[in-house]
Amino acid sequence: MSKITDLLIGMEKHKSIFENEIRSLPIPTCSDFGSPEKPEPIEFTATDEKLESKDSAAVKEAFANSFEQEVLKAAGTNKAPLSGKQVAVLFSGGPAAGGHNVVYGLKKILGNSNTLFGVKAGPKGLIQGNLFEITDQNIAPIINTGGFDFLGSDRTKIKTDEQFQSVKNTCVNNKLDAIVVIGGDDSNTNAAILAEYLSKDVKSDGSGVQVIGVPKTIDGDLQIGDILPISFGFDTATKIYAEMVGNILQDTPSSRKYWHFIKVMGRSASHVALEVALQTKPAVTLISEEVAENSISLAQIVDHIANAVVNRSKKGINYGVVLIPEGVIEFIPEMNSLIAELNDKVAEFNSELSVKNNEEKRNFIYTKLTPVHAQLMSSLPDYLEDMLLADRDSHGNLQVSLIPTERMLIDMVTIRIKELDASVPFATLNHFFGYEGRCGAPTLFDAAYCYNLGLTAGSLILAGKTGYMASVADLNGGGQPLGIPLPGLLNIERRQGKDEFVIEKALADTKSPAMKFFTSRRDVWAQEDCFASPGPRQLWGPASRQIPMTVALNRNYNSLDFNIGK
Amino acid sequence: MSKITDLLIGMEKHKSIFENEIRSLPIPTCSDFGSPEKPEPIEFTATDEKLESKDSAAVKEAFANSFEQEVLKAAGTNKAPLSGKQVAVLFSGGPAAGGHNVVYGLKKILGNSNTLFGVKAGPKGLIQGNLFEITDQNIAPIINTGGFDFLGSDRTKIKTDEQFQSVKNTCVNNKLDAIVVIGGDDSNTNAAILAEYLSKDVKSDGSGVQVIGVPKTIDGDLQIGDILPISFGFDTATKIYAEMVGNILQDTPSSRKYWHFIKVMGRSASHVALEVALQTKPAVTLISEEVAENSISLAQIVDHIANAVVNRSKKGINYGVVLIPEGVIEFIPEMNSLIAELNDKVAEFNSELSVKNNEEKRNFIYTKLTPVHAQLMSSLPDYLEDMLLADRDSHGNLQVSLIPTERMLIDMVTIRIKELDASVPFATLNHFFGYEGRCGAPTLFDAAYCYNLGLTAGSLILAGKTGYMASVADLNGGGQPLGIPLPGLLNIERRQGKDEFVIEKALADTKSPAMKFFTSRRDVWAQEDCFASPGPRQLWGPASRQIPMTVALNRNYNSLDFNIGK
Repeated sequence: MSKITDLLIGMEKHKSIFENEIRSLPIPTCSDFGSPEKPEPIEFTATDEKLESKDSAAVKEAFANSFEQEVLKAAGTNKAPLSGKQVAVLFSGGPAAGGHNVVYGLKKILGNSNTLFGVKAGPKGLIQGNLFEITDQNIAPIINTGGFDFLGSDRTKIKTDEQFQSVKNTCVNNKLDAIVVIGGDDSNTNAAILAEYLSKDVKSDGSGVQVIGVPKTIDGDLQIGDILPISFGFDTATKIYAEMVGNILQDTPSSRKYWHFIKVMGRSASHVALEVALQTKPAVTLISEEVAENSISLAQIVDHIANAVVNRSKKGINYGVVLIPEGVIEFIPEMNSLIAELNDKVAEFNSELSVKNNEEKRNFIYTKLTPVHAQLMSSLPDYLEDMLLADRDSHGNLQVSLIPTERMLIDMVTIRIKELDASVPFATLNHFFGYEGRCGAPTLFDAAYCYNLGLTAGSLILAGKTGYMASVADLNGGGQPLGIPLPGLLNIERRQGKDEFVIEKALADTKSPAMKFFTSRRDVWAQEDCFASPGPRQLWGPASRQIPMTVALNRNYNSLDFNIGK
Repeated sequence: MSKITDLLIGMEKHKSIFENEIRSLPIPTCSDFGSPEKPEPIEFTATDEKLESKDSAAVKEAFANSFEQEVLKAAGTNKAPLSGKQVAVLFSGGPAAGGHNVVYGLKKILGNSNTLFGVKAGPKGLIQGNLFEITDQNIAPIINTGGFDFLGSDRTKIKTDEQFQSVKNTCVNNKLDAIVVIGGDDSNTNAAILAEYLSKDVKSDGSGVQVIGVPKTIDGDLQIGDILPISFGFDTATKIYAEMVGNILQDTPSSRKYWHFIKVMGRSASHVALEVALQTKPAVTLISEEVAENSISLAQIVDHIANAVVNRSKKGINYGVVLIPEGVIEFIPEMNSLIAELNDKVAEFNSELSVKNNEEKRNFIYTKLTPVHAQLMSSLPDYLEDMLLADRDSHGNLQVSLIPTERMLIDMVTIRIKELDASVPFATLNHFFGYEGRCGAPTLFDAAYCYNLGLTAGSLILAGKTGYMASVADLNGGGQPLGIPLPGLLNIERRQGKDEFVIEKALADTKSPAMKFFTSRRDVWAQEDCFASPGPRQLWGPASRQIPMTVALNRNYNSLDFNIGK
């Protein structure tokens, strides 16, 4: 074999040149943890900030043992941390960049006087008791790498009595003292409920098991003002999408030929689309929350895009990019009310629908919908109707990522442009950027943020806390570890016909500084090419430290660079 | 306005932090050009290498004035370079990363004693005489940036007498002495024909206009052994796709849920798929050339993928990635012969077909095809039939990128798996990576390679050469500027029913070291996860200098890093 073939075989199994190099990148540590070489767990004290939701009274009653409202901050290093503790950590839901560094931070802060277990394959692994001990040896290769593959993940929601009892059994069988749930809004809701359920009478001495959440989601819909500026994974995902969108923007005046309709992942909220728009400045960006707030109809959206195409064409610009948030269809008033009724009807007639083919499903559902919805439904292209009738996810939600909104808009805009000015050239391509953004190697920001989230989560455990979510605030001013009381975030929401405690998804605020900036510039971006290419995310060099622009704007930071541990 | 909003507005129009920083990255220069600060044009001398094609005799007759076969190499700096020359440069065909640096290299080597014009919007701009003078001021912002937007491009093929006469008029009207065509195989064929056509009697003194080609294509199908190891843009495009594929691979054991079928751009040849496979090591990769060589049927391909899925499932691995080259469908023998007949029939019945809807088109074409093809055609899913009947590109080729091969394979593999073992879970997602890879910022390799291609092209002009393609060989040993005689590359091929001189597309050689390495490892990659994530391409730091793995293997380099100018 030649030298090169040996080299290439040596790169198999996560040993690319890039992967080998990123493992030794330095990771900054918030000064509260002491020296970066040997971080120490911190003690916590209450801040002035108290979380209040519309349903606080009901939450207090239901979460009698774990109810807390005060946000915690660091109060020096913990002089008497708990020790001999057995802690389990799990990933829940879709992957996001940086999860491995949360585990690394946890392992580092728990040190040799405690034991860290990894739960395999998410909440289901917790129910089944599928645990293994995490050693310094097996954690070394995952430092700064992307993905959740060290543990795996799944979307099981722990909700039945049997499931809660199984988790309790897992705690008893493995002598667990604490569980760390790395997940999004639903998973942190689950962590809150688990914290209350496990608050006492788990161990033989009557004591309980602590539960700590860590805020993960590429969607950015788990964020709470200054105390949780952003969830982890958002920065990496939006930088991956922004590079792709920037590349395609760069292609448009090169090829001078296409309008690209690009849908980006992000579920209901438009944080991802807004961040990518700020990074790249395309001709048109839809923001779902604005559509809902101003009751913008599908016809108005189509008209808006068609007019942008026609106006640019008058200047000889027969190309551009339309950026579409994954969930926009749910925010169009008439579509939203149709989908809401469909959600109920699909649940109600699940068994009847499951045995039908697509055409039969459509004809069946027309007879079950209120007439105005049946009419709207039948007016849509067949492929869209099929998507609206597709299987729901484990939370009973329509899987909006499967709806080809970008194709639907192209079809409808094509018709509208022919009405407005049939001479306007309108060649199109469509894209969906989603899965490629969840498991990339974390940006320097996500790598640092996640490691410090892990240090914070571990510190909360060693300080005896339960029912908190770890956070790191002040990302521009050194980084401030916080503990956010999960019960303080809970509201009552109706889901699948039942009232449930949930952490509300944080939607994009149309009055936020980021949105205001966006709305102040978008008309300029529509009229002529103003785009920029943010490029591939850099792990070395002068372009490697940028924080999300939405975060910098909304938190009123004075620079675009993150600053942790300085 | 806040400081941040000012910063963000300042980033509009190609001024992202990344774009601002890459413009000042140092670009290495081959030592033949002297000092990197002030490169000088080189003189050329013949090497021992003489290009021979099967049709050399016919080419010699048709290219009486420009016929050359000897490859040229540097022979010191040019002590008496031409001066006062007016040179036009144009992009032809789809964009590829690094094109701007070719223009920069040209501008640099032509210096102040010659004038460089940019042709707007490709060959069409040359026909229309749409030129502007390129100054040091307007070239500064495009250094190291992606895209072809500085000039724009198009796919016009200069073929009619009127078009050739128009180009001659453009030369006369703008007092041009030389034209540089930056393009792929078809564009360099066009450059060869143009060189012959313009070889004399253009200017009043009876002299001609020189034409020089530059090898561009992300597809990698313009490469000639050691003298042209690769076309520019291939490295950047494959690194962009490899990051995305690597991210998705990283997602598979994280989510433990999906088989991803990923099609990558690359037209007929499988160079892109092979390079991405070597970078990422997915479970299954199809190589079109191997399919053709071994006469592998569609059913066999489906069976191969289905068996890989079933075998991994037995080990509890219910996920993976299948990598599909864009053009594979044309290489499946029975599909190839169907497509060949369809190409003829679509050309023959173009006017009849153009007024029909999809269903009518299908029913019409069944009656025109030989029975065995009509039967095969009607057995395919409707959406695939429609694609096979879609409009041809300007070269009369089927636009293979529009065929949803990845969807077709998913549909067929799903059926086959149910036959093999209905208990095997098989949830799928499909992707097509193409346009996002053409206009990204060039890798350090493409940036350096392109700049030196520009220096070489300019040197060929100032040495009075015509009908040559610039090349830089020995990319691992300092870089060697070469001039490749375009007539030496020409063959006769039948296209749209006519014999034409063409540069043959370089397909992947199934006997090449890269293919041999791939075939020696792929069974291991299929059985369990061996993947690696090459990460986003880096412009700074220790992971920024890798050359394509296929190039390193095929050229027998002793390292994966490029080495130009050292």
